[in-house]
Amino acid sequence: MSSVIRLYLPELLSLEQTYDLSEASHHYLSNVMKLQVGDSFYGFDGQSGEYEVQIISQNKKQTQVKAIKKIKDLSLSPDVWLLFAPVKKDQTDFIIQKAVELGVRKLIPVLTRYTNTDKIRKDRFLAQSIEASEQCRRLDIPTIEEAIPLNKLLSQWDKSRRLYYMDESRQGLPVKEAFAKAPAPIAILVGPEGGFSEEELSKLRHLEFSTGVTLGPRILRAETAVAAALSCWQALSGDWVNYREQG
Amino acid sequence: MSSVIRLYLPELLSLEQTYDLSEASHHYLSNVMKLQVGDSFYGFDGQSGEYEVQIISQNKKQTQVKAIKKIKDLSLSPDVWLLFAPVKKDQTDFIIQKAVELGVRKLIPVLTRYTNTDKIRKDRFLAQSIEASEQCRRLDIPTIEEAIPLNKLLSQWDKSRRLYYMDESRQGLPVKEAFAKAPAPIAILVGPEGGFSEEELSKLRHLEFSTGVTLGPRILRAETAVAAALSCWQALSGDWVNYREQG
Repeated sequence: MSSVIRLYLPELLSLEQTYDLSEASHHYLSNVMKLQVGDSFYGFDGQSGEYEVQIISQNKKQTQVKAIKKIKDLSLSPDVWLLFAPVKKDQTDFIIQKAVELGVRKLIPVLTRYTNTDKIRKDRFLAQSIEASEQCRRLDIPTIEEAIPLNKLLSQWDKSRRLYYMDESRQGLPVKEAFAKAPAPIAILVGPEGGFSEEELSKLRHLEFSTGVTLGPRILRAETAVAAALSCWQALSGDWVNYREQG
Repeated sequence: MSSVIRLYLPELLSLEQTYDLSEASHHYLSNVMKLQVGDSFYGFDGQSGEYEVQIISQNKKQTQVKAIKKIKDLSLSPDVWLLFAPVKKDQTDFIIQKAVELGVRKLIPVLTRYTNTDKIRKDRFLAQSIEASEQCRRLDIPTIEEAIPLNKLLSQWDKSRRLYYMDESRQGLPVKEAFAKAPAPIAILVGPEGGFSEEELSKLRHLEFSTGVTLGPRILRAETAVAAALSCWQALSGDWVNYREQG
C-alpha cells in the first residue's frame, strides 16, 4: 500500500462497497500518482474512520474503489473553535493550515473593526482544510462557517462555550494560568494585525463568558498567535495532555 | 514620533552621540518612509536597549541620527536555542521568523539524515531575523550559527543545557509533562519533514541530556512543530509564565 497517499472521501465508507471517485481524486490517483488496479491507499470519510482502499477498476475518465480493511475508528478533534480575522492571503492560508494541524473542530472568519475584509473565500478555505486534514492524518474535517461580524457573533454566543481572546494590549492572564483548566468546549479568538479596537476590547473584557490571554512580552503576528494559542491550549487542556502512542 | 518605525542599529547607542545610518536604513527612512530632519523613530542596538532616535541631518546619500531618549533597558530573550533542519525555502523563512517572534536566543541549522541540504543561506537567515526582531519589538537579535551535522553537534554538547527533541515516532513525553519544569538554558530540536532516521532517534533516546517530546496525535509540519514547541515552552517554563504588562 502506498504509505504517502491519504485521501478524504466524503461519502460514508463501508467495507466491501464500491465507490466512484470524484474527478479530482481520479485525476490525482491515476495521472499524478500513477496508481493502477489492485493498488491501495488510505481513505477516510470524516464520519466512520480510516480504511485501506483499493482500486478495483479504472479507465481514462473514472476510478472505482473499494474499502477493503478498516484501520481506525473515527475519533473527533477536540471541541475547540478558532475565530480569526482574515488577514493577507498567504497569512490566512497559513492560519487555516495550522489550525487544522493543531486540531480545531470549527473555523469562523470574524469581521472586526480593523479586519481587511476584501476577500473571504470560503471555497478556498475549505479546499485547504481538506488538504491539511489529509496530510496531518486527522480523521475528521473541520467545519468552516461563513464570515460574521464579531459583534453579531458575540450577541448570539452560547455561554457554555468559554471564549479566550488573545489580548494584544497585554491585559490578559498569562497563558499557563488561562489554559490550565480550560476544558472543551472552548473557542479561541485572534484579532487582525492591527489588533482589536478599544471598543471591541472593552466589550470583550466585560462579557461573562470571555477571558483575555496574554502571549508573552513580544508582539506576535496574527498567524503566530493562532499557532501559539492553539498549541498551548492543546498541551494544557486538549488532546495533547496525556497523549502517548497506543502501539 | 512614528509609532510604526522600529530599526535595529547595530552600533552601541548612547544618548546625545550622533551616528551615520547604514545605506539600507538611510534609504528606508528617507525614500520609503519619507522621514525628514526632526522626525524620530524607535531604534535598538541589541546591547543597551531601545531609544527614541531623531534625524538630525539628511542629504541624498546619508542620514545622521541621534538617540535623544532611552525608552527601555536591554532585556534578553530566554536562553533557549532552536536546532532546526532546513526545509523548503518558504518553510525555512517561516521557521526563522516564528522562532524570532517566539523568543529564541540562538538558531542552529542542523544537517540530519533526511535534511534537504541544498541551500543554507546564513545571510538570508540573518536578514530575516533582524526584520522579525524589529517587528516583534525584541530588544535583542538572535545569533545564527553555521549549519552543523547533528552528530557533530551532539558529540560536543554542553550537558548543562537540556535538549528536547520533537519525536515524530510519538514515543516522547506529553508536552505538558516535558516542559512543566524545564528552566533555561535549554534547546529545542525539530527534525525535517521526513523525520529523524532510526539511527538518529536511537541515539537521541540514549543521550543523558536529551528528552523526547510528543506533540499530540496529529502529524505536524516542521514549521508547525517549531511554533508549537517554542510556544508551549515559553508558556510553561519561559518568559510567558508570569508575564503581565508593566504599566
